[in-house]
This record gives sequence, structure tokens and C-alpha cells, in this order.
Amino acid sequence: MNATQEGSSPVLNLLAQLHRDHLAISEGTVATYIPELAKADPNWFGICLVTANGTVYEVGDTRQSFTIQSISKPFVYGLALEDNGRAAVLQKVGVEPTGDAFNSISLDPGTGRPRNPMINAGAIATAGLIGGKNRVVKIRRVLETFGLYAGRELDIDKAIYQSESQTGHRNRAIGHMLRNFDILTDDPAPTVEQYFQQCSISVTCRDLGMMAATLANRGVNPVTGKQAIRGEYVESILSVMGSCGMYDFAGEWIYNIGMPAKSGVSGGVIAVLPGQLGIGVFSPPLDAHGNSVRGIRVCDELSRRLDLHLLNRSGIGRSAIRLKLTGAEIGSSRVRTTQESKILREGGGRTALYQLQGNLAFAATETVTHDIVTGAGGIDFLILDFKRVLTLNESACQLFHLLLRQFHEAGKSVLFARLGDLPLLRRYMKAKLGVGWEDKFQLFQDTDPALEWCENKVLERAGVGRSADHCATPEDYDLLEKFTGEEMGVLVALFKRRAWKKDEVIINIGDDAGEMFFVVRGNVSVIIAAASGTPKRLATFSAGMAFGEMAIIDRAPRSATIVADTAVECDTLCLEDFEKLGVSQPAIKIKLLENLSLGLCRKLRKANREISAFD
Amino acid sequence: MNATQEGSSPVLNLLAQLHRDHLAISEGTVATYIPELAKADPNWFGICLVTANGTVYEVGDTRQSFTIQSISKPFVYGLALEDNGRAAVLQKVGVEPTGDAFNSISLDPGTGRPRNPMINAGAIATAGLIGGKNRVVKIRRVLETFGLYAGRELDIDKAIYQSESQTGHRNRAIGHMLRNFDILTDDPAPTVEQYFQQCSISVTCRDLGMMAATLANRGVNPVTGKQAIRGEYVESILSVMGSCGMYDFAGEWIYNIGMPAKSGVSGGVIAVLPGQLGIGVFSPPLDAHGNSVRGIRVCDELSRRLDLHLLNRSGIGRSAIRLKLTGAEIGSSRVRTTQESKILREGGGRTALYQLQGNLAFAATETVTHDIVTGAGGIDFLILDFKRVLTLNESACQLFHLLLRQFHEAGKSVLFARLGDLPLLRRYMKAKLGVGWEDKFQLFQDTDPALEWCENKVLERAGVGRSADHCATPEDYDLLEKFTGEEMGVLVALFKRRAWKKDEVIINIGDDAGEMFFVVRGNVSVIIAAASGTPKRLATFSAGMAFGEMAIIDRAPRSATIVADTAVECDTLCLEDFEKLGVSQPAIKIKLLENLSLGLCRKLRKANREISAFD
Repeated sequence: MNATQEGSSPVLNLLAQLHRDHLAISEGTVATYIPELAKADPNWFGICLVTANGTVYEVGDTRQSFTIQSISKPFVYGLALEDNGRAAVLQKVGVEPTGDAFNSISLDPGTGRPRNPMINAGAIATAGLIGGKNRVVKIRRVLETFGLYAGRELDIDKAIYQSESQTGHRNRAIGHMLRNFDILTDDPAPTVEQYFQQCSISVTCRDLGMMAATLANRGVNPVTGKQAIRGEYVESILSVMGSCGMYDFAGEWIYNIGMPAKSGVSGGVIAVLPGQLGIGVFSPPLDAHGNSVRGIRVCDELSRRLDLHLLNRSGIGRSAIRLKLTGAEIGSSRVRTTQESKILREGGGRTALYQLQGNLAFAATETVTHDIVTGAGGIDFLILDFKRVLTLNESACQLFHLLLRQFHEAGKSVLFARLGDLPLLRRYMKAKLGVGWEDKFQLFQDTDPALEWCENKVLERAGVGRSADHCATPEDYDLLEKFTGEEMGVLVALFKRRAWKKDEVIINIGDDAGEMFFVVRGNVSVIIAAASGTPKRLATFSAGMAFGEMAIIDRAPRSATIVADTAVECDTLCLEDFEKLGVSQPAIKIKLLENLSLGLCRKLRKANREISAFD
Repeated sequence: MNATQEGSSPVLNLLAQLHRDHLAISEGTVATYIPELAKADPNWFGICLVTANGTVYEVGDTRQSFTIQSISKPFVYGLALEDNGRAAVLQKVGVEPTGDAFNSISLDPGTGRPRNPMINAGAIATAGLIGGKNRVVKIRRVLETFGLYAGRELDIDKAIYQSESQTGHRNRAIGHMLRNFDILTDDPAPTVEQYFQQCSISVTCRDLGMMAATLANRGVNPVTGKQAIRGEYVESILSVMGSCGMYDFAGEWIYNIGMPAKSGVSGGVIAVLPGQLGIGVFSPPLDAHGNSVRGIRVCDELSRRLDLHLLNRSGIGRSAIRLKLTGAEIGSSRVRTTQESKILREGGGRTALYQLQGNLAFAATETVTHDIVTGAGGIDFLILDFKRVLTLNESACQLFHLLLRQFHEAGKSVLFARLGDLPLLRRYMKAKLGVGWEDKFQLFQDTDPALEWCENKVLERAGVGRSADHCATPEDYDLLEKFTGEEMGVLVALFKRRAWKKDEVIINIGDDAGEMFFVVRGNVSVIIAAASGTPKRLATFSAGMAFGEMAIIDRAPRSATIVADTAVECDTLCLEDFEKLGVSQPAIKIKLLENLSLGLCRKLRKANREISAFD
């Protein structure tokens, strides 16, 4: 998914424009405190934006290698969190911004604890927290982790590392100070060397974009799909980047640009918009704060032009409730008798179907539970349809669980439909409801069987509803309504009785149509493959109803598959006999065609009602 | 929308539980530095959560008055931004966290500029930036602004103000220091008094919740709907709250709780989750940092239990593309001739309809433009349907604008349908496209006319398409297909010719059905009121086609309104004549019924196809 050609994509065009606009900037100076870093070309300039979906946009020198330097700090901090847990790490390194420069020592005067992991002292303390039996193992683990973030194998730039090691007196001093305060509990020298190595890992601007996008995607590299860090620690990494990532420029950075970020002395900058994207910029000339001049300008411009400020969020917009229907407005595809339909129209008002949509975090879910609770007095059966829900977090789970319990205690039912891609809710309910959770947490593949379940309960309570064993006689056939006994006799003589076992296919989609069917006993369902590819039940017929008549009328191949839901018997009328009737018994044919048209009209009206309700 | 009864709502139950759990905490001490503050009851404890939609949940002492103290700082900072603009304010007050305590002076050693507006020095400098000809006017403007946030009129607690004024020597010293550095350019005394007054504004916990929710709702009080501050400045207020709002606890706060927040010495805390909710907690006992003990614990617990950490966001989940169909898969409701239908099925593949959904910020919109651009080679007509888009920001506007220009340059068309609740895109396009923007930015009320527009272009290019003036003869009537000349003659003798002017109603919904219609000339449309209440076109018929036949079959009242789109002439066949045919001319009646059933079958199949595509 690499869009590399300018002119081909709005996002890439925008980045290319930004690159052109900022290329001419001549401010800033390349870092010289390590001789090797001074060799960087001040004209190198790359921008890479990677979405949380894994689309990569890059312009300029995005494949030029350079050393990661301080941008390593948040990623190593994440590894330390995984290795030790949050509490143990917080004992050794704080999370308060200092307002001081990048090379300030800033230890807590009492405990010697570095103020945060983004200053060198904190980063060296963090390096000491990486698990592994020696420095070789530890730095290998760091390299492997960085490789998971970048989506490719990374290595150390040995020349830079040697240069760092030869000139790193200040960092060695910090190491000994940390040892003095027992923040490092062993010889500090190997940890300081390990820190020099982590800073000397060779990356490209593209790698930075990918690493940032992995943080944006809650720790999963969006291209490889591999987990670089457990999702629960991402918020901690982003928090320290947000409050301390840009040294004494951190406050202004959040104020203007509004994304957690980290810069490095070699000219790299990363910025992360959680859930959305990661940005990597590379341009060696630095400002007085030690941040890349072009890096900051590009991030600033991107934030303003793409409205990326984390704190600039408008309301959740329209409600998370897409549709709210009652059982009186919408029925299952189970075709009901006239008496049943009447009861369902009258009693259906106590069934409520909520179709939810969008991203269900706390606030959106609250609009749903608030609406339900407000009308709960009138609801016996609540169906929640999740098909259009994009994401759902733990706080949504919690509210749905509380709602479920509340409804159960009041003797009401809550049905959950189309939860397909949202396993979190299932896991949450299982954990909270304990043994027998399946009985309380009623799951349905589709809204249709959920509606049918509610309808059956309503009919049961009304003492109506026929068993699947009910046998229809020709007097019961819808299509023979208003037929005289004599007329019926003529047709019955043409019928052939056939039988199917449960789950047997009665009609295959694509077959030529040779007959129409009158159900004597049992249930049959009309099944199509929906847009998504999953089978969808269009209708269910029971004794007395006809099916397969449409293909007889338009002589088209069968447009759906029809399956026996139970053992089924049908009377069948073949195409030839149906046609001949027009000559031999025109009055009967006219009645039959009128009843047929009437049935089609009713179905078409129902279909049009649904289209207008669902659109 | 005030849910006040426990047991009635999942959210309220949760808050009540939290209130019970934290009531017993006995840590912390009530502030005593002002004698009046020391009178507070340490047991006072209220929690109020207000959603960005304006639902208010409150438990405990939420109606107890207290003075706002330092929580006034971010709101006054917002007013200073509105009065002076961002750049002028930044000249007087920085935005860097200090890592120092609340009463630290923290002026920049060179310029004397206070480090940020959340420390007293910065807040006093900010107070000096409020517009107004004297202190009375300035404090009235502050009170009015706070009242807009809280949704009710607020006033100053005079006893507290006098107590503050009598003991405020340190703040007077700060005032003179600021005057010394020309941060305040006039006598500092009135500004310091004004600052004492702003801190002495009397609020309740409910007010705090509402004020926080107003920030969460981009400056609009979600209950009154009134704008308390321009939306563009909200991100700046939240930024300083996020980096400096909790004094030397700010880093840890963001790390653990992850919401911009502000505390006050009287025991109040506010926290804001942008776009979602605001929280107000009130409990006077303070910890060593000067923050309310229960306030911090409640916010911590709420953040963990409701997953409110701002930086804990998972990916945008499933794509923003809900449906992607071609013109070969879906047609407009314009009923076409057999020849036209064939051309449209063959050429429809070059029309693409994207139905978008959810919240369109940069990342979600990028998935859309990426998908479109990837398949752009095969698209001549692009229809973007916004009906299910919940929100859309400026960066989405920008990408759609770039896409539109790219398509235009390639001679392709982009049609925007159902933009109803999203005025931002319209304004953006108007500004960017300039004169003649309406020609480039094609807006359609519904997808249906957009599809028809594309179909007409396809037919035009194929050199097909009849004018509205085309006159049909009975030989052209669909329902008379396969009729012999003699049979046709029988029917024609029964027809009555009628005419309507453009926009005249031919059939009213609810009318009794007395006839069916064969269009001789012109176009008619079938209109229903959709679920939303807006009229929706179900179908359009032109010369040769029949309508009004369903009500003839099922003897039901007319189910839709039918309107003449142009001047129209029809042949009509009345119900009695249609019925009599069965006796006098059974063969003709059978043919007519067969053609009728065939037409119904085709419509039903199209309806079922659409239901399965759209569900």
C-alpha cells in the first residue's frame, strides 16, 4: 500500500508541497558534539506519514540512514515498562516535565530519581531497567523491539557508536550519579555503553514514520501486523512524549502542534496522533532547543493543515443511535398468518430495536443507554444491533453490562445482534456474568432471528402460534382464497405431493423453474448470499403459504436457495399444468393470477417499507 | 435531561458507587491560607459528569457553593485569547510547565514572562490582558463569560474576596514584579484585585461539570447551546491545562489520568475529555500538591473504569467506507427501457458510489481517498454519499477538495450526495473553488438523483435516451406486451385519455383506487415520506410504462403520492372495466394479469436486491 507517485494521491501531493515549501529553509546548525554526527548533509530532508491502517506516504530523503539518538528513549521506555511493570519503573524514573534543556541532569534532590525518561539521566536509568543477563542480550532485545516497530531488521551504526562512546563523558558522569543514588544498582559503565548503542541504532525517515504509526496503532505495526509493545503501555509512552518529549519546548509543542512527539539530535522528529497516524521527519539542522528546524516546521504545518491537534475535537456529533424501531414497525422475515400479524402489530410496540453506529467509547455509549433507560418502561424486549458499530471500548462494555443487569432484574430481555467483529464485548460479558453467561448474554447472528425470537415470545404469551406439525389443507392455502370447492377440486387434481427432510435443499439458486409449491407441513426458508457474502434469510414460510411462484411468472432461473428448516411436505403445481389452465379453466386461472398478484403486491409493499426505514 | 435517580441509569449507578467508595477517605487537609476557606466542611463531596451532548449526572453535594479559586485560570486565559489573539498573549505569558509548586513565581529570567498561565504569576498577567475600560467592566466580562460556561448567572462571594484581598501579599508582590518587567504596563493593584475577585466567584460542583463539558463540546455549553468561547481557542486552553493544570503533579496526572484538568485550593477539580465529557469533583481536603484528595482519586478511578485516557485510542477500526457499489450494481429509481437498462448495465461499471460512515477526520478520510485513487482509472463518475457520516473536520474537507480537483483535471465528475448536516464542507469548497464553485462542487439531496444524473450522462454518450416529449402508442405499453392487434383494440376502446400540468398531483396518498394509468407522454414520480420525514422518490416512469396498478390489485388505498414531473398525458383504465374483462374477455384478462405479475416480480426482485445490498 505504498503510494509513491506524486499526482496520484491528495495526501502525497500535500506532503510534496510541504517538502518544497520547507526545502529552502537555511536556519539551524547540524549537531557537532559527536564528530561523526557533524558529517550529516544539512540538505537531507525527508517526510514520511504512515496511517494507523498502514498506508505509507513518503517524500524526499526518506531512505537515508541516520542514527536514532534520543528518539530511542520512548521506545526503550516502553520495553522497560513491559519488563518491569509501571510501578517498578516509576520508582526509578519520574514522569514530570522539567522545563530544562535536553542535557540537564534533573535528578530529584531527595531520591536522586531522574525527573522523566526523556532527559538523558532518565533514559540511562531506563536503559538499566531492560531485562537480559548482560549488555549483549539487552541491546539485542532493544534491537529486536525496534525492528518490530520499524517492520524491518535494524542495526547499530558502529562508527557513530564509537564516536559517542569516546566523547560521552557527561553521560558517564550521569551514570555514576545514578549509581550514587542507587537508581542504577550495579556498575554503571555497561548500562551507559548500552545507552550509547541504543542511540546509535541506524534508521531512516521511513522507519521513524512506521515506528510512530505503530504507537498510533496501539503498539501493532500497521503494515506487518506484528505487536511491538503491549497496547496497555502505549498510553504511558505517549504521555511522557506529550509532557517531556521536546525538552524545554514541550509545552509550546503541545500548545501549537498538539501531538505527542520526540526529537533526536541527528535531526529526526516523530509525532503520533493516537488511533490515526504517525509522522517521521528528518532534517539535520537543529535549533537552540536541539530540535530539527524543518522537523518542527513541517509538524506544525501538518498539524494546522490536517487539523491534527489532539485536543481539538468537536462533539461526538449525531447520536450513536442510527435507527430505533419497534416490533410494530419492523417484523422478522418469518411470514406470519393474518391472526399472528395482528397480535404482533398490537404487541410489537414493547420490542425495541436499536441499531447502533460509529465508535462506541464512553460518551457515545452513554447516549444509547440514556435513551434506552428513558424509554425502558415501555420495553420488554430490547435488541441491540452492532452491525454498524466500528469500534467499542471497555467503557462501552461496562455500560452495556450494567444495562443488561438492570433489564434482567426487571424481568426484561436484552438481545445482542451482529457482534461479529467486536470480540471485546463477548469477553467482557463472559468475565462479568460468570457461569451461565450464555443464558443472560443472548447473542444472535442477525437482527432477523432476534426479532423472530421476540415475536415468538409475544405470540407465546398471547397463547397463539402453531407448531411446525400443523398440517394445512387446500382450504388453508393463501393462493386459493375465495376459491369454490369445485374450483379447488380442479387444482388439487393437478397437485403432486412431495416431501423433504430437515436441512434438505428444495430449490437451488440458478435452477430452471419448473413448479410452484404450497406448504402442507413444516417450515422452509429463502436464503441469499448478502453483500458481505454471509447467507441471509429473506423469508420463512409455513403451512398454507406458497413459494417458488416468481420464477414461474417471469420464467427466470431461481434467484434464491430454498431450504427445509424442518421435515417438509408440499403440494406442487408444475409449469405446464399452470399454463394449460388458461385455456381449460380461464376463470380459475384468473383467480389464481389475482391471488398471486395480490401476494406479490403485499411483499413489494413490505419491501418498500423496509427500504424506506433502513436507507 | 437530568438523570437524578439512582437505579435508573448505568452511568449514575457507577458514579454513586464511586461516591460511596471514596466518602470514607480521611486524608488531606482543608486549605487554611485564607481564613474564610478554612470554614469548609471536609465531608462535602460531590461528583458531576456532563456529556458533550448535555446529559448531566450528579451525586452528593453538587449544589453546595464554594469559590472557584485557581479553576478560574484556564477560563480567564480563554477570554484573554479571544480579546488579544494567541500571539499577543504568548508575548506576555508562556506555555511551558515549570515542575514547580502552585505559588512559585517562575518568571523567565530574561524577559520576566511568567512560564505559564496556570501559576499565580501567569494568571495575574493573564488577568491584565482582559479587555474593558476599568476593573468593574473587566470583572463583569469575566463573570458573564463564566456564566455562559456554567449555564447560569454567577456572582462573587464577597466574604472570600475580602479575605483574599486582606491576605494576598504574595500576589501583590507578584503584581509588582510583573510591573517591573513590563508584563503589566499599568498600576498592578487593580489587576491583582480583579484576580482576587475572579478567584472568589461562587460556583457549585454542578457548575464545574458544566464548565468542563463546555470545553469538551468545543466551547458550546451543551445544555443551553450558547457559545462561551470561540472553538479555535479551546485547544489552547486544554493544552495549558494538560501541560500545567495540576502544578508539579501535571506530568503524573497526564500519565495516569490522561485528561486536561485544573484544580483549585477550595477543593474543586475539573477534567475534560475533548468531544466526550466534562467532570467536576468537589471535596475540600487537599494533598501536599494543593489538589483535592478525593478529586484526584475519583478522576483516576473514572479514567480507568471508563477508559478515558486521551492517549489510549485504538485504530480507527473498520474503514470509513460503508458501501462501495458501481452503477452496474445499483440503479436510480428512474425506470428505464430494456435498451437503456442494457447500456446502463454495461457502462455502469464506470460510475462508483461510495457510502461513507462515522467520523471523518484525517485518517478516516485518507482511507477513502486512498481507495478511490487506487481505483480511479476505472471511474468516470464518482458519487460520495455522506448520509451516514457523523462528523467531518477541516482536514477531511481538504482531502475531498484535492480529490475533486484531481478528478476535474482528468475530466471526471465528483458528485456529493446527502451532505445535509455537514455545512463545513460546503463552506470549504465555496472558499477554495471561488467563483463558479457550484458548477464544480455538484451537490445532490439524495443518491438517487445523483445516480440518475450519471445514468443520463452514460446514455447521452451512447447516443440513446428519449426526450420527455416522446409519445407512446399502445404498442409501446409494457403491460400490453404480446397482445395481438385485436386484443389491443378491445383495451384501447376502454381507455380514457387524461392530461396533467407539470407538478400537478396525479394520485394522492390515501385516495381510494379507481383506475390504472398508462403513460402516453411525460414523466411521473412516485413520492413517499421517508423515515426522516423528507420526501423520497421511489420511482419515475416515462412513456409506455404503467402505474397505479397495485392499488387496483389489492384494493387498498393509494400508498404513495404520484406527481407529474413534466406535462403528462395518460391512458387510464378504470377498475370496473378491468373487472368486467374477466367475464367478457378472459384471455385478455389473463394476458394482462400475467404482464402485471411479471412487472411486480421485476420490481420485487429489484427491491430485494437493494435490501440485501444496503443492509
